[in-house]
Amino acid sequence: MDRICFSPGPTQLHACVPDALNRAIEEGILSRSHRSEWFSGMASSVKQQLFELLGVPADYRLFYVASATEAMERTIQNLVRAKSHHFVAGSFGDRFYQTSLEWGREASLTKVNVGDSFDVDLFDIDSETELICITQNETSAGTQVPVDSIHRMVDLHSNKLIAVDVVSTCPYAPLDYSKIDVAFFSVQKCFGLPAGLGVMIVSPKAMEAAAEKGVAAKGYHSFDVLGKWEVEGQTPETPNVQGIYLLNEVLCDYLKRGIEAIRSDIDLKFDLLDSFSRRDARFEPFVSDHRYCSRTAYGLEYKGDAFALRKSLATEGIELGAGYGDLKKTQSRIANFPVHSVSDFNRLVEALDRLG
Amino acid sequence: MDRICFSPGPTQLHACVPDALNRAIEEGILSRSHRSEWFSGMASSVKQQLFELLGVPADYRLFYVASATEAMERTIQNLVRAKSHHFVAGSFGDRFYQTSLEWGREASLTKVNVGDSFDVDLFDIDSETELICITQNETSAGTQVPVDSIHRMVDLHSNKLIAVDVVSTCPYAPLDYSKIDVAFFSVQKCFGLPAGLGVMIVSPKAMEAAAEKGVAAKGYHSFDVLGKWEVEGQTPETPNVQGIYLLNEVLCDYLKRGIEAIRSDIDLKFDLLDSFSRRDARFEPFVSDHRYCSRTAYGLEYKGDAFALRKSLATEGIELGAGYGDLKKTQSRIANFPVHSVSDFNRLVEALDRLG
Repeated sequence: MDRICFSPGPTQLHACVPDALNRAIEEGILSRSHRSEWFSGMASSVKQQLFELLGVPADYRLFYVASATEAMERTIQNLVRAKSHHFVAGSFGDRFYQTSLEWGREASLTKVNVGDSFDVDLFDIDSETELICITQNETSAGTQVPVDSIHRMVDLHSNKLIAVDVVSTCPYAPLDYSKIDVAFFSVQKCFGLPAGLGVMIVSPKAMEAAAEKGVAAKGYHSFDVLGKWEVEGQTPETPNVQGIYLLNEVLCDYLKRGIEAIRSDIDLKFDLLDSFSRRDARFEPFVSDHRYCSRTAYGLEYKGDAFALRKSLATEGIELGAGYGDLKKTQSRIANFPVHSVSDFNRLVEALDRLG
Repeated sequence: MDRICFSPGPTQLHACVPDALNRAIEEGILSRSHRSEWFSGMASSVKQQLFELLGVPADYRLFYVASATEAMERTIQNLVRAKSHHFVAGSFGDRFYQTSLEWGREASLTKVNVGDSFDVDLFDIDSETELICITQNETSAGTQVPVDSIHRMVDLHSNKLIAVDVVSTCPYAPLDYSKIDVAFFSVQKCFGLPAGLGVMIVSPKAMEAAAEKGVAAKGYHSFDVLGKWEVEGQTPETPNVQGIYLLNEVLCDYLKRGIEAIRSDIDLKFDLLDSFSRRDARFEPFVSDHRYCSRTAYGLEYKGDAFALRKSLATEGIELGAGYGDLKKTQSRIANFPVHSVSDFNRLVEALDRLG
């Protein structure tokens, strides 16, 4: 029985992982120094491949951190002297907001109930705001912020910095990265890798702002220090070398498949699941508004006992994520990442139909 | 040809890694949630095994971070309101010192030249000092601070907190952990694992101090937040799950071997290499004072071209670390970790004798 994991992170491993790991062990790669030419070459390859895949301008920077949670902290520390504004539609947006408060900044927020979302360009932003923080895909709630509204917001607030949490959506969301100052994700989501590595994409404008604000001088993960090492293809500390090595392998596969094919496959799998849950009376989408429904982390409501349903599916090797917090009684979360194939989704829908 | 890596981190992988990783992939472990009972059980097992191995009191806490560099930052952020004191014998001690300055603390230091070390109890410490920071094994220089002098220093300064960097020495150094408030290491050294995970052992006194000082309220890796999650056997963010899983496997092996056997094996391998380098005119120890010479990261001086020697050894599958910075021309660094066997060291000494 083939096991397939639809949890929204950690999720199903990318198919290249077992061979790549065995090769790494065979060749002694995991014992190599992070100060070696081999490492610098690999880190540079990740940057080149990721930027090509996403269309990131060449003068942007790529930094490695430990997690998306760390990325939020470093973003606030480096880019906010006094005030940030946050769009909060669930736990991860709230984490970003709390991070700003915890580090002594003033933070304002625009908040909606779990399951709702917004067009972020429709809201006023206080003129004191230095950084606007958006969670493009709110994994905890299964909602998304439409990409076009993020682009419009940037055009309206060109004097501010924009940070976008793309944790469970990158490389799916067709963001214009040239409009964004900080984007970050962790590799256990859409890249299908073991957890423990975060990636930050940082604009020249953000680098300048960090230097000007004089908040860049703090610690080994200031943008200043990260930037100095990144020029050498290195990191200040010994990083998760295995994670970077595997990310390079996955990016190679994603470039072969092509970003358009990856995105249209995700749309196709989303339609398969969403149309099933809309037409079958036992199920319904948690987020009914198509514009705000996450494509990559789907909240599926079930009229029966969602615990029992997940258990039945698990006996057939199909693992779903539980709904976030109290929602887990009626809701399951289903990741729709590039590592999940159309046939995985056909199998899932067939099993939901049969066991639901 | 069997390859053996003596670099002082990342180093030779523990022999259990290939099988444990393949089993993890087979069983879908790397897709499991860090909020699952499975994860909590594993994290609790690491704590129980590590504390048993090292003799850490049961009321101490175990926190996971990304690296030893992060551990330094979190130690300063959580435990120092105004002033820390640092014993600096090389780059890693200096990093700890700089971290305190970078985060706006006043930091004083006792510093020796690279290759020298000290009995830390012989120096006066300013009464304003809240935290004394010691790098027990200075990997960059191949020196150590004698454990008995650390113990005596603690007895002299019981009103202060003591943090000990045990990165390249734990579990070798026979520290009395009940005397230490923070000890930290990264798993790519003496635990023979892929890089990307740091471990902090924190005393109840340090937890109280962090709370009292009112500096504990900052961010997801404050001792306060780490402590709340640790009670559940969990971490605030998605951690390096694979690293924790592998650490559990290695600890199981180390407990089977027994801490006394691990320590006496390291002493035996050290004697093999040190007596060779002392009696052979082509070589000499970088640190001649036996009391201060690191047992686990040995600096070997070579009268010829150290680059050429390392290259010859590499053709036979024996990889040494280069000396730190400018020292690399004449010096090689040789890790003596639990993952290196006596026969590995016999092979190394034989090859040095033949190729030197």
